[in-house]
Amino acid sequence: MRITVWNEAVNQVEDKNVSAVYPLGINPAIAEFLSKEKDFTVVQAVLADKECGLSEELLQKTDVLVWWGHRVHNEVSDEAVKRVCQHVLKGMGIIFLHSSHLAKPFVSLLGTSCTLGWSENDYSERVYTIDPTHPIAAGVPLDFKIPKEEMYCEPFDIPTPDQLIFIGGFSNSAVFRAGCCYKRGYGNIFYFQPGHETYPVYYQPEIQRIIINAIRWAYSPLRREEIACVHVVE
Amino acid sequence: MRITVWNEAVNQVEDKNVSAVYPLGINPAIAEFLSKEKDFTVVQAVLADKECGLSEELLQKTDVLVWWGHRVHNEVSDEAVKRVCQHVLKGMGIIFLHSSHLAKPFVSLLGTSCTLGWSENDYSERVYTIDPTHPIAAGVPLDFKIPKEEMYCEPFDIPTPDQLIFIGGFSNSAVFRAGCCYKRGYGNIFYFQPGHETYPVYYQPEIQRIIINAIRWAYSPLRREEIACVHVVE
Amino acid sequence: MRITVWNEAVNQVEDKNVSAVYPLGINPAIAEFLSKEKDFTVVQAVLADKECGLSEELLQKTDVLVWWGHRVHNEVSDEAVKRVCQHVLKGMGIIFLHSSHLAKPFVSLLGTSCTLGWSENDYSERVYTIDPTHPIAAGVPLDFKIPKEEMYCEPFDIPTPDQLIFIGGFSNSAVFRAGCCYKRGYGNIFYFQPGHETYPVYYQPEIQRIIINAIRWAYSPLRREEIACVHVVE
Amino acid sequence: MRITVWNEAVNQVEDKNVSAVYPLGINPAIAEFLSKEKDFTVVQAVLADKECGLSEELLQKTDVLVWWGHRVHNEVSDEAVKRVCQHVLKGMGIIFLHSSHLAKPFVSLLGTSCTLGWSENDYSERVYTIDPTHPIAAGVPLDFKIPKEEMYCEPFDIPTPDQLIFIGGFSNSAVFRAGCCYKRGYGNIFYFQPGHETYPVYYQPEIQRIIINAIRWAYSPLRREEIACVHVVE
Repeated sequence: MRITVWNEAVNQVEDKNVSAVYPLGINPAIAEFLSKEKDFTVVQAVLADKECGLSEELLQKTDVLVWWGHRVHNEVSDEAVKRVCQHVLKGMGIIFLHSSHLAKPFVSLLGTSCTLGWSENDYSERVYTIDPTHPIAAGVPLDFKIPKEEMYCEPFDIPTPDQLIFIGGFSNSAVFRAGCCYKRGYGNIFYFQPGHETYPVYYQPEIQRIIINAIRWAYSPLRREEIACVHVVE
Repeated sequence: MRITVWNEAVNQVEDKNVSAVYPLGINPAIAEFLSKEKDFTVVQAVLADKECGLSEELLQKTDVLVWWGHRVHNEVSDEAVKRVCQHVLKGMGIIFLHSSHLAKPFVSLLGTSCTLGWSENDYSERVYTIDPTHPIAAGVPLDFKIPKEEMYCEPFDIPTPDQLIFIGGFSNSAVFRAGCCYKRGYGNIFYFQPGHETYPVYYQPEIQRIIINAIRWAYSPLRREEIACVHVVE
Repeated sequence: MRITVWNEAVNQVEDKNVSAVYPLGINPAIAEFLSKEKDFTVVQAVLADKECGLSEELLQKTDVLVWWGHRVHNEVSDEAVKRVCQHVLKGMGIIFLHSSHLAKPFVSLLGTSCTLGWSENDYSERVYTIDPTHPIAAGVPLDFKIPKEEMYCEPFDIPTPDQLIFIGGFSNSAVFRAGCCYKRGYGNIFYFQPGHETYPVYYQPEIQRIIINAIRWAYSPLRREEIACVHVVE
Repeated sequence: MRITVWNEAVNQVEDKNVSAVYPLGINPAIAEFLSKEKDFTVVQAVLADKECGLSEELLQKTDVLVWWGHRVHNEVSDEAVKRVCQHVLKGMGIIFLHSSHLAKPFVSLLGTSCTLGWSENDYSERVYTIDPTHPIAAGVPLDFKIPKEEMYCEPFDIPTPDQLIFIGGFSNSAVFRAGCCYKRGYGNIFYFQPGHETYPVYYQPEIQRIIINAIRWAYSPLRREEIACVHVVE
């Protein structure tokens, strides 16, 4: 399984609040725990790479794309976004993490504004497993804590998820649909909320388990060559 | 619109913790605010009435049934439960409140165990409107607080709701799918979590608004006389 | 309720196959039966109008937009499409008819290719009501026939509908999800398959009933002024 | 994977119309093609066995139960039905075939009447794959024909499926949701319509592929010991 881990990778090493947690940036931290899965071949890509790190060549060799963006969503070119969306519709899986709810491909694939509630203050979060037998929840406890996380809250302006797997509850009583599955064309999409850049969320084993499970769930061996009318002669 | 408000009405007046909040019991409190709707004709029924307060005659005159039970779910006879379920399948709306998640007709119509997480301690709750344009959310704020409420938490063992309207978040970070819509046959079903007997939840205007909206949503002018195979001759 | 009936209106009067059925084009035929609803104020707009017939001014005065397009989807400007989608997200209802499954706003709001199966031959169709108590099915028989219609068939590359109301079956055994509901942001969306330009489908009372019902269902009194993050201070 | 193939097995060998197609009855025919899967351990059970062929001991050793019934649904004891449903809620998968839409466990788990439209005449059927990337559709063509099959048609009185995988279209233009997924508690449920006793449907490779896929999809390694409230102390 060929995984491409993409990140905007802007000001993460320079920002001491981020580098104190992720010295090399977020992307290497995610790539590292994914690389421990024996059947995963993990490639890293960043916005600064040619064609925004999302070239046709790379996407053709990608089974599942993991996306983390925050500050510079708009710097991803429309051509790159279109390529990503077309590959999803043809069967590439895609995982959107945390602030990627405003990433252009996410908004484009879902069709809503994807805005949400937010606070200046951070809180502890408890993640509840709503759908314990879903493959993405395999080996995940029925609930687990994140000591500190940026608070996102409802209403989250998304289409009704095809499956809702996790709901997050914050210590200020805020709630958020934290783990949502969609299918668009032949492609599986998973959004997962935890993962603020200044907290060590991606080192938590439950978080790593969920992302690994989500990649396996999103992977599909079936690809369409063409997205076009099926002409039925008879 | 003919509303029947049903309650087990067991030990509510006798229990000082309850009667301090609802001096006449919960049923009259609910009936009272419903009666202010000009097009609602509200009838009260309780378990102690003949045929468990759920006679064929009464159900035939009921457009929407509002159900509150807690301690004596098993004292509702199987015959009464069957009558209720048949009327729902034929088009009667039904609203299950709070601890009625274990009411026999709810469990029977949904097919799961309908169990949930629970705590000995009560907490404050914030109810979030997930689906702000659903008729049940009309005039309801995007979130509102309940100062104190019994804590219910996920996983709630229910089928995936047809529509999820509200999620509750508690001050201990617990979350719960607080407002869930289902359709079974020709009948609309709404479950709503707030409403513990020792807290003045049913006096809150947001709660009253939601229950009134839910009744209007659940009401259907269409009734089936028979639940049977449609024989297509051609 | 302010309804805008929009049509590409290209080559309909000139094409004898179309004008034999709809002498003035399709748009006037739809507007005519809608105008009989006493609470509907119906306005017609076409692609040839300024700003593609979809000006900001007109959209602000539109509660529900009815869309029919076929041959020149790409001639609708991206600016007009963006305006339409933004109004849907803010609360305007929208009905997409027949070949409008490839209309730019439909594809943009749904996020998939919206392609489908198709045949050179036309067949008779029987439309089945899957969800008889849905408001869009009010007064619609459990099934009804269309003597001749262009054949669309599955797979229809759309997201899973929030509600599936009708399925069409053709005399060559083809099937198609003919009536599909979605919500995007504050806006309700309904797609309805029958309506080929060379058959008198829009004169059938069942079809008229469904479109009128769909407009009433899609109408929402609730509009968002802004589509943006809700900043929760606390 | 331990599969139990259950059949009412009443009057199948005696009825020449059935035995002409399935000389030993339907159950052995289904068991035979399942037994070719190397990781399947297949056991047959019938209504005439002790405890209706659904003993606690057998169910505890069953990962997925395949059910075919038609004429004598009511002869399955309520105790056996309750055992089956409890095992499903704890995590046993279950596949209901054809006329098993009126099997007691199906009706009990779904909560509706599960009635459908029907005709005295049989027709050819074309099965369309609505969700081509679902595991149950793996290796299944986008559509395939069944030369002759009993006609079932909508409306099918079921809850909205969690996933709709197949729709059947008959040569009389009737349509039917032919392949429907549900989850109840920890158990996966699949209903599949084709399979009338007088036609050689279960010999078709597409049908066999779908049933095998459905068993793999329904299988879950996760079982609950108890179906009860989770007491959260904190």
